[in-house]
Amino acid sequence: VKVYLPFRTLEWIEETESLRIIDQTLLPEREEYLDLRSVEEVYGAIKVLRVRGAPAIGVAAAFGTYLAIKDEDSDAEALKKKLNEAADYLKSCRPTAVNLSYAVDTVLEEVETSAEDEPSALKRRVLATAERLRAEDEEKCRLLGLYGAELMEDNSTVLTNCNAGALATCGIGTALAAVYTAKAEGKRVRVVCCETRPLLQGARLSCWELQKAGVETTLICDNMAGSLMRSGAVDMVVVGADRIASNGDVANKIGTYPLAALARIHSIPFYVVAPSTSFDLSIDTGDDIPIEQRPEEEVRTVRGKVGIAPEGVSVYNPAFDVTPADLITAIVSEFGVIEPPFKTNIAEVLRNE
Amino acid sequence: VKVYLPFRTLEWIEETESLRIIDQTLLPEREEYLDLRSVEEVYGAIKVLRVRGAPAIGVAAAFGTYLAIKDEDSDAEALKKKLNEAADYLKSCRPTAVNLSYAVDTVLEEVETSAEDEPSALKRRVLATAERLRAEDEEKCRLLGLYGAELMEDNSTVLTNCNAGALATCGIGTALAAVYTAKAEGKRVRVVCCETRPLLQGARLSCWELQKAGVETTLICDNMAGSLMRSGAVDMVVVGADRIASNGDVANKIGTYPLAALARIHSIPFYVVAPSTSFDLSIDTGDDIPIEQRPEEEVRTVRGKVGIAPEGVSVYNPAFDVTPADLITAIVSEFGVIEPPFKTNIAEVLRNE
Repeated sequence: VKVYLPFRTLEWIEETESLRIIDQTLLPEREEYLDLRSVEEVYGAIKVLRVRGAPAIGVAAAFGTYLAIKDEDSDAEALKKKLNEAADYLKSCRPTAVNLSYAVDTVLEEVETSAEDEPSALKRRVLATAERLRAEDEEKCRLLGLYGAELMEDNSTVLTNCNAGALATCGIGTALAAVYTAKAEGKRVRVVCCETRPLLQGARLSCWELQKAGVETTLICDNMAGSLMRSGAVDMVVVGADRIASNGDVANKIGTYPLAALARIHSIPFYVVAPSTSFDLSIDTGDDIPIEQRPEEEVRTVRGKVGIAPEGVSVYNPAFDVTPADLITAIVSEFGVIEPPFKTNIAEVLRNE
Repeated sequence: VKVYLPFRTLEWIEETESLRIIDQTLLPEREEYLDLRSVEEVYGAIKVLRVRGAPAIGVAAAFGTYLAIKDEDSDAEALKKKLNEAADYLKSCRPTAVNLSYAVDTVLEEVETSAEDEPSALKRRVLATAERLRAEDEEKCRLLGLYGAELMEDNSTVLTNCNAGALATCGIGTALAAVYTAKAEGKRVRVVCCETRPLLQGARLSCWELQKAGVETTLICDNMAGSLMRSGAVDMVVVGADRIASNGDVANKIGTYPLAALARIHSIPFYVVAPSTSFDLSIDTGDDIPIEQRPEEEVRTVRGKVGIAPEGVSVYNPAFDVTPADLITAIVSEFGVIEPPFKTNIAEVLRNE
């Protein structure tokens, strides 16, 4: 099956040596592309979520490392020093998604293990690695779609939050890849998008790309998922992931945990769809995943344009929460569907590949 | 204990024969009062939530019946006909809160059972009934506060949604009355307000009045309540009610049900605070409570000012959900704290009064 989506989340522009991204802060009103030409511009774009989604920010950061060193011509040592600084800088940008560290560390490792000593050769290697990570992500999305679609029956309603779609990746998405693939296979799949306050990625981004893909979509506020599940209208919950611990605990967009808890109460399957780059076997449980706290103004305003609360009121604004493994029915990776017990099965699947 | 709040949600202005309300659509930016001089203006203000909250709309509607008949001078029959039409009109405005029907029906009954046959005397009776309902609501709030405060320990954190505060009533509120009273009794109580999309009554209204009352307040998005409960930071959940069925099922603002479900999972007490006017013994369970569906634009935009979704996307926008009785720890009424089994205990408490 072939899924076609008429936009590109991120691509490398060879002629201008720049990373072109769709500016996601302007969606859904305007589809505008930005060419990022320096590591600082990449950092800034990731920070304010012009480019977002765990897989996409990983690949964007990999290209960012190239932008940091592309004009360094003195010697290999200076180049590696600059590369390491850029790596630390980019990894500090957003702490929760492990894909960012994974991508940047992959670039560093490629350079460290290279026999080359010419700056120009090392630079080619950095760029080639970033491009390889992009291509791999695209392919992983395709496989996530195929495995995820197997879980979806014809005529079913999928509830999701945030944007685990094409806009979060270099391919057709993670959770939404499953929807697109199921549709391409001829299944009728409806999607309910939780708007996902404060930054409304569900309303702004998932609804936008699902509409473009011709998928039947209904938007709800986050607090409506409970009664919708209770009414029997939801067949499954499918979400992405920002980091998956060894035991299967999943950090994902704030609001994921309550969806998982409500799904359990209503005996609705709860699936996480994520590439292997979102797994972090270096940590045991979700308790060890750092949770990014974002600016209070994101909650006190909507899109920075309209205030919704009295000035000076305190705000709690964690960008992610942790869903304990025991609420997850299965995790879909590019290697297939991983079922409980997660600790054993995740280790086995990742070791075999 | 005495609780003072420096604003009036609704009051009757004798000289101009008008119902003065604080325009809640303008809060928290502007504290402006509107004088409503006709039943149509009252209907319109209730419809677009300039005045809202189950107890407050009941009393507002009662004054609305007076505005409908105050210029009817022909005879008692014509006046009663007009009054009945106004009653039907007002009751159709918002279907879920039973307080609206209760208040309007109380006015009708007063007139039906009156021996008077003079239009002027009947009109006085209608106005006096509306004023009595207002005063009773104020007194019920005081008692709700006293009984509710008993449930709050010193140094505790209360999570609430929407606005079950002074702005929802003619007194110091329902759920928030308990907070204000506990504070006046010298207890330190912090409140976490769920913003309550789509109309943001938690962010706009509860934060506003809690700030005015000097209560320590933190605003969260609705999807953050789950992880906050999981972190151990919430000692109890306290909400209002729009209608309570005989078996204790509670219709309240959309998002209440998931809070109750999450509270149960985390062994956090879940309290409903509501006056007896919110009970509807004519229905057996929450399944029989009509749930108001509101305009899609409320979800696709924020405060009518900023769009958050692509045009044309479908929306599901129920204003309320139903929390099943078995998730409720206790219901606080002006007669005291009602504990399970609710079917028996609600009937007994209301019969005795």
